[in-house]
Amino acid sequence: MTRHFQHEIDRLKEQVLHLAAKVEANLRFAVQAVTERDGSLRDKVVEADGEIDRIEVEVEEECLKILALHQPVASDLRYVIAVLKINNDLERIGDLAVNIAKRAVILDCENPPPVPFDLPAMLALAVDMVRRSADALVESDDAVAEGVLQSDDELDDLHEKAYHAVEAGIASNPGLVGYFTSLLSVSRNLERIGDHATNIAEDVIYMVRGEIVRHGMGSRL
Amino acid sequence: MTRHFQHEIDRLKEQVLHLAAKVEANLRFAVQAVTERDGSLRDKVVEADGEIDRIEVEVEEECLKILALHQPVASDLRYVIAVLKINNDLERIGDLAVNIAKRAVILDCENPPPVPFDLPAMLALAVDMVRRSADALVESDDAVAEGVLQSDDELDDLHEKAYHAVEAGIASNPGLVGYFTSLLSVSRNLERIGDHATNIAEDVIYMVRGEIVRHGMGSRL
Repeated sequence: MTRHFQHEIDRLKEQVLHLAAKVEANLRFAVQAVTERDGSLRDKVVEADGEIDRIEVEVEEECLKILALHQPVASDLRYVIAVLKINNDLERIGDLAVNIAKRAVILDCENPPPVPFDLPAMLALAVDMVRRSADALVESDDAVAEGVLQSDDELDDLHEKAYHAVEAGIASNPGLVGYFTSLLSVSRNLERIGDHATNIAEDVIYMVRGEIVRHGMGSRL
Repeated sequence: MTRHFQHEIDRLKEQVLHLAAKVEANLRFAVQAVTERDGSLRDKVVEADGEIDRIEVEVEEECLKILALHQPVASDLRYVIAVLKINNDLERIGDLAVNIAKRAVILDCENPPPVPFDLPAMLALAVDMVRRSADALVESDDAVAEGVLQSDDELDDLHEKAYHAVEAGIASNPGLVGYFTSLLSVSRNLERIGDHATNIAEDVIYMVRGEIVRHGMGSRL
């Protein structure tokens, strides 16, 4: 690996970390918008997402530049391709944070009943998965990535419980359909964020081990 | 471009077309499972999705092989990277078709009320967007890709209407919460399929024109 190539890879790592940090921060704001039922935070989240979109484009251009100029092979090639894919997932997590923040307005009703499922646990888990998947990438740490896959099962279970709790909530409070379906939407967006963090973790495992674990293929290949 | 490289690119195109055709066919089955309320079609869709997952892995490996062996630059590099990203989107459309098919069982209830929104139009539009985005890729046709972006606005509008229709349906029929939320889930999955087709179309436009249109950046860059 030439010194110039190493320098560009280091720069790429910094950019991805920067993007991951922005996405994580925005997700926290989105979550705050919902838990504090603060519609004004929504605009902040939407604005920050514009910055996330710009960084995503920069990272992709950097990847294409590295591929064209340095024509990496073997593990270096896998690294750049992993960053390309992960970049995409981080940007989409940003979009999902915007979806969550937009629900804050609808949830901001008079005397809402308590949330009938463990939203704080879901929020904490989703934010944590995003951070760990980004760490796994930057440290090329497949053990950390494995942990993310396990957390995703936990998040899926929480979403499943949320789904049933919301169904029961609507059945006993039909006048609050909008409130409950918005809560379910927040839960679903968190679950999808978990899926993207899982995609990132799977790409890290492939990058480190050359082993495809997505689609449950871990044992097959 | 060497003859060998051209041969590999042609092979890659065939693989992607094959994947797109499989995804489109499975989406049609998923839709049939819902419209005919036929839970038995669900297993067929799940099984075919396993095949889709395998093709996706093959396409990605083919892309990595081409990058490593031929080290393409300029438009050839852009083409291979576009295929890598599009491959990902096609596979996720496959997952969403599975989500839709899984709803067929829940929708299979006694004397269900009519669907309160234009589901056939949404289905037709989503399937059409997937096919056109794949065609746009294979033909490198940015005009066809532009058409997909327009259809996505239409699909988003239909989903918005479905959301309000379902809210009204639950309010007047609280006993059928499960039925209505399942219908909403089908609508949402179709809307997400439209988003993935849009991603594909945006990548095709970038590939053909070198112009980034995602994130509404079309006019900015």
